[in-house]
Amino acid sequence: MQLKGNCIIGQSGGPTVAINASLSGVLQGILENKYYDQVYGMVNGIEGLLQGKFLNLTELFKTQEDLDKLTHTPAMYLGSCRFKLPTCEHSEDLYEDLFTFFESHNIRTFFYIGGNDSMDTVLKLSDYAKANGKTINVIGIPKTVDNDLPLTDHTPGFGSAAKYVATSLLEIAHDTYIYNVPSITIVEIMGRNAGWLTASAVLARTEYSPAPDLIYLPEVPFNMEQFIEDVKAIKAKRRNVIVAVSEGIRDCEGQYISASSGAVDAFGHKQLCGAGKTLENILKAELGCKVRSIELNVLQRSASHIASKTDLEEAVSIGKAAAKLGNAGETAKMLCYKRVSDAPYAIEIFAYDIAAIANQEKKVPLDWITTRGNDLTEKAITYLRPLIEGEVHLTYANGIPSYCNIAHLHRAH
Amino acid sequence: MQLKGNCIIGQSGGPTVAINASLSGVLQGILENKYYDQVYGMVNGIEGLLQGKFLNLTELFKTQEDLDKLTHTPAMYLGSCRFKLPTCEHSEDLYEDLFTFFESHNIRTFFYIGGNDSMDTVLKLSDYAKANGKTINVIGIPKTVDNDLPLTDHTPGFGSAAKYVATSLLEIAHDTYIYNVPSITIVEIMGRNAGWLTASAVLARTEYSPAPDLIYLPEVPFNMEQFIEDVKAIKAKRRNVIVAVSEGIRDCEGQYISASSGAVDAFGHKQLCGAGKTLENILKAELGCKVRSIELNVLQRSASHIASKTDLEEAVSIGKAAAKLGNAGETAKMLCYKRVSDAPYAIEIFAYDIAAIANQEKKVPLDWITTRGNDLTEKAITYLRPLIEGEVHLTYANGIPSYCNIAHLHRAH
Repeated sequence: MQLKGNCIIGQSGGPTVAINASLSGVLQGILENKYYDQVYGMVNGIEGLLQGKFLNLTELFKTQEDLDKLTHTPAMYLGSCRFKLPTCEHSEDLYEDLFTFFESHNIRTFFYIGGNDSMDTVLKLSDYAKANGKTINVIGIPKTVDNDLPLTDHTPGFGSAAKYVATSLLEIAHDTYIYNVPSITIVEIMGRNAGWLTASAVLARTEYSPAPDLIYLPEVPFNMEQFIEDVKAIKAKRRNVIVAVSEGIRDCEGQYISASSGAVDAFGHKQLCGAGKTLENILKAELGCKVRSIELNVLQRSASHIASKTDLEEAVSIGKAAAKLGNAGETAKMLCYKRVSDAPYAIEIFAYDIAAIANQEKKVPLDWITTRGNDLTEKAITYLRPLIEGEVHLTYANGIPSYCNIAHLHRAH
Repeated sequence: MQLKGNCIIGQSGGPTVAINASLSGVLQGILENKYYDQVYGMVNGIEGLLQGKFLNLTELFKTQEDLDKLTHTPAMYLGSCRFKLPTCEHSEDLYEDLFTFFESHNIRTFFYIGGNDSMDTVLKLSDYAKANGKTINVIGIPKTVDNDLPLTDHTPGFGSAAKYVATSLLEIAHDTYIYNVPSITIVEIMGRNAGWLTASAVLARTEYSPAPDLIYLPEVPFNMEQFIEDVKAIKAKRRNVIVAVSEGIRDCEGQYISASSGAVDAFGHKQLCGAGKTLENILKAELGCKVRSIELNVLQRSASHIASKTDLEEAVSIGKAAAKLGNAGETAKMLCYKRVSDAPYAIEIFAYDIAAIANQEKKVPLDWITTRGNDLTEKAITYLRPLIEGEVHLTYANGIPSYCNIAHLHRAH
């Protein structure tokens, strides 16, 4: 074992319901193995740290009960930021300030939990440390509901978002089938460039419910005429048509379908309709039947009450693995999942060079999408299914989930 | 005990997650007490029955396990309709057809589970039976997420919708507090005329989270200037403002706020913005900060995965009470809840004349709303809190809830 010292952890980017599970995992790994004396937490990521905002997590999370509550709390306990760290050439002072802080607080390891942009921060800090002979280790831990990080089989947070999407789609199907009236329901799902989360809607299908009947991902150019044909073809067979679309679908020229509305409101402001609403309006005009669109919205990434047990357990494990890796003196690495087997489902955790991961984006393979571009193949289902398995049982108080107190995030301006 | 015979049950109106629990309760009461030989189910309510569509529920639900699964399945297992039964004066043939069916199938009791409009059906059929010397009993069982039926303390289905709203609001708060950026989030909640469900957003508040900071119900005329002032006042104190609004808020002239947008889309169709979207656009223009609106949409009424245990247990009980009442020869009654005590929470079930209930609407009492009309008083919280208590643990298969097979609803056109 190395000499002790302290470490610091930050969370960054968009929320997931597993990002605190990874934070909890890092803390559990450290607590169990006594890797560090003090664990600090950046408030609002690297941006907040640059403003001098941090907490002492060692004092806040002392028991397994505290850490379990953290595991099941949605979004970032430590707050987040959307901050692109400038390059060292342009902002050397900033790097010097950061490393002065690290040295004065005896920080041996810097852990950062986030998506593509956050891994860019990990890369830049580790490059700076190497170039300037700093002994601090910089370790990245993935998270994103978009599941778009390369090299890792999937990302923490994705499975829970996928479980929310699949469960909601099934419940929307039950809500839809009850009326003896033809209808079309369009469900808009998050994922600007990568269609992983929209693809997970396929998991809503049961022996009695074919919903979603059609699935459109941003990986394939969206053709409006073909879409209308597809809907008509299903409508000829079934009373209720349910369609899953990614918010990021684009036409063959790369224009977002969501941007095609030229609407202005009563105040003259341009109305930016989402993809779902835009398709709703078009189908109403084309087909003249009942059409509605549903935007699943932020609950996709924050509904801890329907988290995937598999996802949260893995997120804790990847956090523990990160703690071990940092303590072992590794740097410039991100932890990844490797799938060992689909059935029975099994993964291993390994570390990979951050340079190969940062700023890269993994999309749904085209051969997992049907030729017509409106559904997923069996390969996609085999990949997706295990990620949503298992339910968590939260503690509730007064009828609502008991989550960690995050008053430190919104107390002040 | 009376002579045996058969009965028929229907479900009507908008879905809730407890309407199958009441159906299950009726079936459990009948199964336990052998009240009837056969239990038929109308498919798509009275409208479907008029088209000759019905099922034999006795054959479909034989075990407690089957009935438990039904209890936890969202929306109407039997399908629904939005059908206003014409008066007998105008459609005597229709009534004759119905009662001919009842007599030919040896129906002693007609159970109808629904909201205001469905209770109108119960009233009309029981009036016809009395006026024409028919011995069939007609019993109403309440349900509606709107909680707007008179005489009953609350309605089955409301507590689960309220739990979904409160849980979602808390999760949205966690999602909102993470960024160090001022923001306003508007959450639009169902309830066109009665603000009960929007009021239940108040249950999202915890020791650390004041969300929703403001709550607007349709019971109080909505004043745009005052609303902007209210938001500004909260914004001066807190970084993130979270507002709950009913979809049905109206100005002092009774105009829906949602209708005030004169937007048209690229195809020239009028864009009917909801209340949330309309307020989002206005606040963006007025305050220039980050504003987003979230429409909770149909999941409020169909998310069985976050149902209130209290609600489902009561809904089963009211179904059993209905079975008993029908068997005892009562008619023209709706079952109601009477609150015996707030703490410990306790209710009793009683029956009341349908004539006093049908076509009536119960709104949130004005003295449960603050003088400024932007929040709820302690009285409201005392009333609402017990209704969302308790969690259900569904059975899951392949990562999604195992609900009843409803293929019979969407098989054909």
